[in-house]
Amino acid sequence: MSDLFGGVAGPLAAAPAVAAATSDQAWLRALLATESALATAQAAAGIIPPDAAKAIATTCDEASLDPTDLGRRATSSASVVVPLVADLRNLVGEPFSRYVHHGATSQDITDTAMSLVAANAVDAILTDLAAAGDSLAHLAADHRDTIQLGRTLLQPAKPITFGLTCATWLTGVDEARGDLARIRRERLAVQLGGPVGSSPDEEVVERVARELGLVVPILPWHTTRNRVGELAGALGVVAGAVGVVGVDVALLAQGELREVAEGEPGGSSAMAYKKNPARAVQVTACAQRVPGLVATVLAGMPQELQRAVGRWQAESATVTELLRVTGGAVGHARALLAGLRVDPDAMRRNLDAAGLPADATDSAGRTGDARGAGELVDRALRVHGELA
Amino acid sequence: MSDLFGGVAGPLAAAPAVAAATSDQAWLRALLATESALATAQAAAGIIPPDAAKAIATTCDEASLDPTDLGRRATSSASVVVPLVADLRNLVGEPFSRYVHHGATSQDITDTAMSLVAANAVDAILTDLAAAGDSLAHLAADHRDTIQLGRTLLQPAKPITFGLTCATWLTGVDEARGDLARIRRERLAVQLGGPVGSSPDEEVVERVARELGLVVPILPWHTTRNRVGELAGALGVVAGAVGVVGVDVALLAQGELREVAEGEPGGSSAMAYKKNPARAVQVTACAQRVPGLVATVLAGMPQELQRAVGRWQAESATVTELLRVTGGAVGHARALLAGLRVDPDAMRRNLDAAGLPADATDSAGRTGDARGAGELVDRALRVHGELA
Amino acid sequence: MSDLFGGVAGPLAAAPAVAAATSDQAWLRALLATESALATAQAAAGIIPPDAAKAIATTCDEASLDPTDLGRRATSSASVVVPLVADLRNLVGEPFSRYVHHGATSQDITDTAMSLVAANAVDAILTDLAAAGDSLAHLAADHRDTIQLGRTLLQPAKPITFGLTCATWLTGVDEARGDLARIRRERLAVQLGGPVGSSPDEEVVERVARELGLVVPILPWHTTRNRVGELAGALGVVAGAVGVVGVDVALLAQGELREVAEGEPGGSSAMAYKKNPARAVQVTACAQRVPGLVATVLAGMPQELQRAVGRWQAESATVTELLRVTGGAVGHARALLAGLRVDPDAMRRNLDAAGLPADATDSAGRTGDARGAGELVDRALRVHGELA
Amino acid sequence: MSDLFGGVAGPLAAAPAVAAATSDQAWLRALLATESALATAQAAAGIIPPDAAKAIATTCDEASLDPTDLGRRATSSASVVVPLVADLRNLVGEPFSRYVHHGATSQDITDTAMSLVAANAVDAILTDLAAAGDSLAHLAADHRDTIQLGRTLLQPAKPITFGLTCATWLTGVDEARGDLARIRRERLAVQLGGPVGSSPDEEVVERVARELGLVVPILPWHTTRNRVGELAGALGVVAGAVGVVGVDVALLAQGELREVAEGEPGGSSAMAYKKNPARAVQVTACAQRVPGLVATVLAGMPQELQRAVGRWQAESATVTELLRVTGGAVGHARALLAGLRVDPDAMRRNLDAAGLPADATDSAGRTGDARGAGELVDRALRVHGELA
Repeated sequence: MSDLFGGVAGPLAAAPAVAAATSDQAWLRALLATESALATAQAAAGIIPPDAAKAIATTCDEASLDPTDLGRRATSSASVVVPLVADLRNLVGEPFSRYVHHGATSQDITDTAMSLVAANAVDAILTDLAAAGDSLAHLAADHRDTIQLGRTLLQPAKPITFGLTCATWLTGVDEARGDLARIRRERLAVQLGGPVGSSPDEEVVERVARELGLVVPILPWHTTRNRVGELAGALGVVAGAVGVVGVDVALLAQGELREVAEGEPGGSSAMAYKKNPARAVQVTACAQRVPGLVATVLAGMPQELQRAVGRWQAESATVTELLRVTGGAVGHARALLAGLRVDPDAMRRNLDAAGLPADATDSAGRTGDARGAGELVDRALRVHGELA
Repeated sequence: MSDLFGGVAGPLAAAPAVAAATSDQAWLRALLATESALATAQAAAGIIPPDAAKAIATTCDEASLDPTDLGRRATSSASVVVPLVADLRNLVGEPFSRYVHHGATSQDITDTAMSLVAANAVDAILTDLAAAGDSLAHLAADHRDTIQLGRTLLQPAKPITFGLTCATWLTGVDEARGDLARIRRERLAVQLGGPVGSSPDEEVVERVARELGLVVPILPWHTTRNRVGELAGALGVVAGAVGVVGVDVALLAQGELREVAEGEPGGSSAMAYKKNPARAVQVTACAQRVPGLVATVLAGMPQELQRAVGRWQAESATVTELLRVTGGAVGHARALLAGLRVDPDAMRRNLDAAGLPADATDSAGRTGDARGAGELVDRALRVHGELA
Repeated sequence: MSDLFGGVAGPLAAAPAVAAATSDQAWLRALLATESALATAQAAAGIIPPDAAKAIATTCDEASLDPTDLGRRATSSASVVVPLVADLRNLVGEPFSRYVHHGATSQDITDTAMSLVAANAVDAILTDLAAAGDSLAHLAADHRDTIQLGRTLLQPAKPITFGLTCATWLTGVDEARGDLARIRRERLAVQLGGPVGSSPDEEVVERVARELGLVVPILPWHTTRNRVGELAGALGVVAGAVGVVGVDVALLAQGELREVAEGEPGGSSAMAYKKNPARAVQVTACAQRVPGLVATVLAGMPQELQRAVGRWQAESATVTELLRVTGGAVGHARALLAGLRVDPDAMRRNLDAAGLPADATDSAGRTGDARGAGELVDRALRVHGELA
Repeated sequence: MSDLFGGVAGPLAAAPAVAAATSDQAWLRALLATESALATAQAAAGIIPPDAAKAIATTCDEASLDPTDLGRRATSSASVVVPLVADLRNLVGEPFSRYVHHGATSQDITDTAMSLVAANAVDAILTDLAAAGDSLAHLAADHRDTIQLGRTLLQPAKPITFGLTCATWLTGVDEARGDLARIRRERLAVQLGGPVGSSPDEEVVERVARELGLVVPILPWHTTRNRVGELAGALGVVAGAVGVVGVDVALLAQGELREVAEGEPGGSSAMAYKKNPARAVQVTACAQRVPGLVATVLAGMPQELQRAVGRWQAESATVTELLRVTGGAVGHARALLAGLRVDPDAMRRNLDAAGLPADATDSAGRTGDARGAGELVDRALRVHGELA
């Protein structure tokens, strides 16, 4: 994800907290925090000398490493932790260098750091999702009884209310948020199994988990990637839920409908009079990139024996990108909804112009009076209130 | 999914209960059961005459419709429910034909039927997953202390136990089962929103949900596809979790290792002496097909306004296929694990031959004694016992 | 692909020739045709007795095998060719049974049959693509000067012509057709490498290729799956090219635009007055399913050593489905375009109503006169004429 | 793609030329080169004053713009070209600022720049592919008669030669290279259609194409994305073709086989004695990420009317990533093959130990003598020689 097209597709600009949480620097901090927490926990458990842990923690805290340099040196071992540990040992110096990375394997550190990076990025995404939901709740309440033409297969169908449209969006956003919050709380775990996953020290695992705010796993999960697959799936659903808003806003903002408009529509390089639904476009663009990344994570699950040959090594970059573009979709949706302008007159006008038959009844003989929509709005708002 | 390649890739043959639950006939039964439950609930709620409901229920129960014929006629409306309702009205006849499909829209029926089909298929998958888990638990217990060479990046690393290998597989299978069971219980919902999602009758929705064993949704979910996305994600993780077993068994069964063998290995059309890991191959083949299908479901989430233009219509076939191939992967894994032959002597021999240095210590100075593996096995077995 | 949802998603009903070319029966015929061609070529090359070849060819021609039964028996070997060869040997009887499948491996037969199935399905898709292109060429010519509002990001932009809209669709369809035709001609190959790909008899390969209308490969391609990946990619582009037409027709048919309408719009189960763009919906639904299938094929390319463990076995079903849904998208597009109704008055009305500024100039100072669009139409028609 | 995990997954480190060709700076240069070429061509065609073109070209040549700043400002319009043109106009100043971006639309510039970026990256990938092919050709020639155990479904099958193994890899790499070179030559095109694709000036298009080394398209392709889909498909096949090498090398390097080894195997952070197949791992990791990205590009093809709402805007970042990870896979494969160590003794030993039956004949009664493999090697080498 370049800055240039992070900008175009919006994640970095739209979700600065997600961008910060997934940057190379954030990854480095997470890797160092893991090595530090490991040493501290091992000292508390009497496994390494307290002075060694202090020296390691201080070094991890103060180390200023260059991601590009580490990345380049990582190529020879296919693991960024190998040069990182080499640098740390140099920086810690004697007599404590041998206590750096004690008993750990590269994947322990990378996986724990990935959980940490994901936790921070997910927290930022949850904040944006909550704000988007609040905007939707306000819109749904404000337009509880604003009549609108319901459209199925993009054809005029029967009257609904714009409040119901918003409540429907809201339910998707709230359900996706609840599920992502569950993953955050219950599934982002520490990894500390040692070289072949056989030797986690439970006391150390629990201390590290507590310090980093992560979960204690049942077993080491070096090649049991359910947690990563579940995270990917939940992000996929989040992107889909805000993607609905992007698609619908672009449709309702069409020149021929003009039922909604963005608060700060985008300009054109060629036609000065254009008002583009720039946020809706960027929600959609970000959401568009998500399913392929989810598939990559899931396809990477069947990992070989005690450590995979490629599928695991492909995960970090894919999960990072997935967090970013999902964060971008959510960030743009939040901005879009905070500024959305609604035109009830246009909605009424379009409904009248739709030429629904005077007896536009459905197959239950009900006329098109949007009856019942208000109660649905109330229910969605109640559920939203309970979630918040 | 043809019968021919259902066979090759195994889903239909390996998971007959899943095949039965997702066949055209099962879909037809689910569509008819939905129309029937709707009429019955509407009669109980005083919306349609009891005699009409009886006539409709009897007709749905006895109707013998041809899926190929319905499929062909569905092309003109892009909905199989349109010709189905036409046929039902004809069969019910006067004076009750107008009470068929009362107040419902095509998508109400298709979505509820999809939940029903998914529920039945998921139940069958859960049964196979539980059986696969039980086999793994036995293997893990039997081989709690069977020494084995741990291999990372396919290179000799340090000793582990085969019990730990099995416990690791087991944890993946159990976690995936727990999550899929949650989806089954909490997320497979009735859909009864009427033409534009504005007019569900709550009493009717609740009665139908109770009769069909499905969940009552917060709002109609015509274009809020979280539930479908979550189901797809959970199936993706299931396939990944059993896919691990397929990949690892094929590796451990290699001619140069021979640590495990299938109970009934496959033959070759060209070399009579070959013993192929046919089940492992088919687990892998089925699992291979899953991520792309999950991506298709997720990519279909942003659906337009009150009913989508294509993305929804693509869902039924994709979800059906996803249930089948995931069911195939699980079915083959169950069969594979029920018959797996383990050779502890080969494991010991391969470990000895690996030429690990006499002081094969890890970075904590521990020798390769697989210490701790036994406790991990015990823990995985305890968790498995609680899940069952 | 069930008949029921083949119907909903349209492939079987919309593209009967593709459905026929990819059915279980068609696969069986292709498998038998391959065994027959192999025996005939081996007799001509003096490798097996002419009488054996005759007996085998007659048996293959007359054999009536049950795909479901073969599929079920295939599970034990993970190959449908194993039970097929067993049946063939039984049917041929003594003294010639041992000449059945002489020197071949299962994958030789399955791969050659897949090329044959693909060739027939692709031929049918090319026919539909050519017809869709012809309809587009007529529409582009008829509406060369029909003024229409150009819309970018779904916002009113500048005038174009509907002829240009059609010419743009046409170019995509024609380019996709040209590329798929190239794959058909140059890349669908015979596979006859023997058990480990080391022993193709060139004379036999060439005779079989000639008889089946397939290409002679450089080497056996048991684990060199470029050909399959290229076919998948070309089908993906075909689906995208007709998918554009589906999306655009649904947008232009919106109640608020009504610039085009389907010749035979679809009905609704709930609202009798609705005219749904059923073909556009089905083009889109089919196209929606394609990218995930292409990814599955590409992800399956890295196949192990001399024969893959799962990735190859997943291919037949995936490619079959890919041919069907692409065929469905193209078949629906052909039907849609054959009947498309165009309303030039609505186009003019919408343009006038768009309220483009009187001086709606672009960044070159040009007014919105759709100047140049006619020449572009002429060019697209010329290229189409050359392709036909 | 971060530098950190670009390192882990290898693209940036392994393929510095691809990294350079797809960096933010490279994108900026391409965007500026396009604006410059446009002005120069328009001056030559008498559309804008020669002095304006000179001023613009000089400014584009000397401009030092900040991608992060442009990316951030792009969010308000969903297009990086909007702030870029604003900056350029400022830098050019009066009286020529109005000739900047004359007659063009944002997508014209982005699409042409994407073709340019892709062309440069593809050139670098083709160079690495050619070098990888040359190494394979040498290996195939050197080991034309080196006997090796053929393995199908990872089980011992029949003897082949390692030369044939290499020739098989070579054919995949060569075919993929040939196809990607075709795309480079025939399909990477200029885009200059103006705001709604109706007003390309042919003389200008041809001049720009000549200057930038790109193709003249039939029509503007703003929403006809065949070219991008074809590029993605070809890159997908390239990744699959080198992915085969990664998978096979990791298998043949297993501790139990040791038939090949990497020239510079990777170390472990935990076990000093380990020799990891680090390049093979990274080939596989990069290749793993490709199919999902290809699916994203294909799923983005159905773009709306005269400019898409999200699907187009998702393309630049996806294509950039696709070029990088494919480049990474190829770069690692090149390095892997340049240093591959082959152990013919181990191959012979493994074959002998496989315990193939003394009469290990295939279904043609041939004994396992790898007969014919040599001719296949010669053929693959001949084809490779012709391609070079």
